[in-house]
Amino acid sequence: MINRMSFKERLVRASRARESLLCVGLDPDLERLPPYLRRELGDQAVLEFNCRIIEATQDLVCAYKLNLAFYEQLGPTGLEMLKETLASIPDGVLKIADAKRGDIGNTAKAYAKAIFGYYGFDAATVNPYLGLEALEPFLEYKDRGTFVLCRTSNPGAREFQDLRCEGKPLYLWVAEAVARANERFGNLGLVVGATWPEELKEVRELVGDELPILIPGVGAQAGDLEKAVRYGVNSQGELAIINVSRAVIFASSAEDFAQAARAAAQRLREEIELSRRPRRG
Amino acid sequence: MINRMSFKERLVRASRARESLLCVGLDPDLERLPPYLRRELGDQAVLEFNCRIIEATQDLVCAYKLNLAFYEQLGPTGLEMLKETLASIPDGVLKIADAKRGDIGNTAKAYAKAIFGYYGFDAATVNPYLGLEALEPFLEYKDRGTFVLCRTSNPGAREFQDLRCEGKPLYLWVAEAVARANERFGNLGLVVGATWPEELKEVRELVGDELPILIPGVGAQAGDLEKAVRYGVNSQGELAIINVSRAVIFASSAEDFAQAARAAAQRLREEIELSRRPRRG
Repeated sequence: MINRMSFKERLVRASRARESLLCVGLDPDLERLPPYLRRELGDQAVLEFNCRIIEATQDLVCAYKLNLAFYEQLGPTGLEMLKETLASIPDGVLKIADAKRGDIGNTAKAYAKAIFGYYGFDAATVNPYLGLEALEPFLEYKDRGTFVLCRTSNPGAREFQDLRCEGKPLYLWVAEAVARANERFGNLGLVVGATWPEELKEVRELVGDELPILIPGVGAQAGDLEKAVRYGVNSQGELAIINVSRAVIFASSAEDFAQAARAAAQRLREEIELSRRPRRG
Repeated sequence: MINRMSFKERLVRASRARESLLCVGLDPDLERLPPYLRRELGDQAVLEFNCRIIEATQDLVCAYKLNLAFYEQLGPTGLEMLKETLASIPDGVLKIADAKRGDIGNTAKAYAKAIFGYYGFDAATVNPYLGLEALEPFLEYKDRGTFVLCRTSNPGAREFQDLRCEGKPLYLWVAEAVARANERFGNLGLVVGATWPEELKEVRELVGDELPILIPGVGAQAGDLEKAVRYGVNSQGELAIINVSRAVIFASSAEDFAQAARAAAQRLREEIELSRRPRRG
């Protein structure tokens, strides 16, 4: 299906409609699902869990981010549940494949076809190591968003991303290349972890207002929410996607898990709104 | 299943048993499968195609490399066919997941579990952008091999991999970090495209004899086979895996495709052996 609006337009619309920059990560780690659900349903607990989380949070989020690893580890059954999970996300809420793919030529084309074609995601995360030329099969899906890893949230991100290359760190080379490619394609974005607020600030200043930034690392990874919002949004206070996974979906492991997730999402959404529009004294 | 031998021992054993450094890439691009097979079997042609290629080439190769993208684009059915394809590869021939994954913490763990646990691959390709710390969930599978992208075969590889970072190009930073990590884990390898023979030579010289190098890019991508072999092997003439996909599996698109693949694999194996052990005048 081809969308009439660009990914960016749909993102702005979704954020405005729900007054929310919050994205909930549907990363159903089997070991952390409510034990009673696993006892009742086995691996199928993943689907039930996701559907209940979506039902409880869909009016509070602009997007859901699904990390494909958690589905792939269950084999073909996991991918069936991925598909059914996507079908239960209502129109108007965006679906982001956190896939971090990066391959060349025909293979990149097949990955893009899997994510955008077969599963119908609105956006995907990709890895820049192979160069932006290798990402073109993703970018050719004009109505979908492609988020390029820039500064990842993990502690080891420093190892290569911080190397000073011809005068500036690698992650800024990536940010600049993505901003340039966006002038041509119009559908790129960046991923910058909330665990690196200074780098996030620097990247937003460098790329200007046009690029959406997907910001994971708030919650279990302890990124600073207020800074993630303040530094992540553009000058209109938009185009940042604040992703929280575990701190929402695993807020409770008892039968009230969906209500607990809703309460956590509600709190986060409010905190985000406060950071976005500081109260005047 | 845990293997008693390390990946490297199994690789050496497989290469010696078949006198072959050849790896055939099972990348069943639907558009290039023999049309008669697709007419008969639809998407299921992928499985039939793979099984016939394996049957026709299994005594000529040390490994098969399966690029997951070509299976993922078919949804859960594609992953079922991936699983059945793997089951038809005989013991002693190694199974490499060309997945180029790269993620953090729990997610990397789930990817490793999918590839090594669920599907039972002997080795996987991974992306270094997130730092080697992020690859540890793969490395903890002691009996499996983890091949880190170093210099990829595509034209755009230059964009970031060639950036001079504090005195040397990024891909050499990666090669050095991988060689160091290998001293601790013993199960790493590198991916260097045959399309960059000088860089391959440089990398092999830098990392010494211990690391296996997976070398794609011969065949359709026109990498130089002789140099790939000469520069890729270690001083014992081993630990290089020369991958060819399209030039073998799509050697014919008629009913003789399996015999044609065998003939192509046989020719490549012989050429590799000649480059590996130069005839003396």
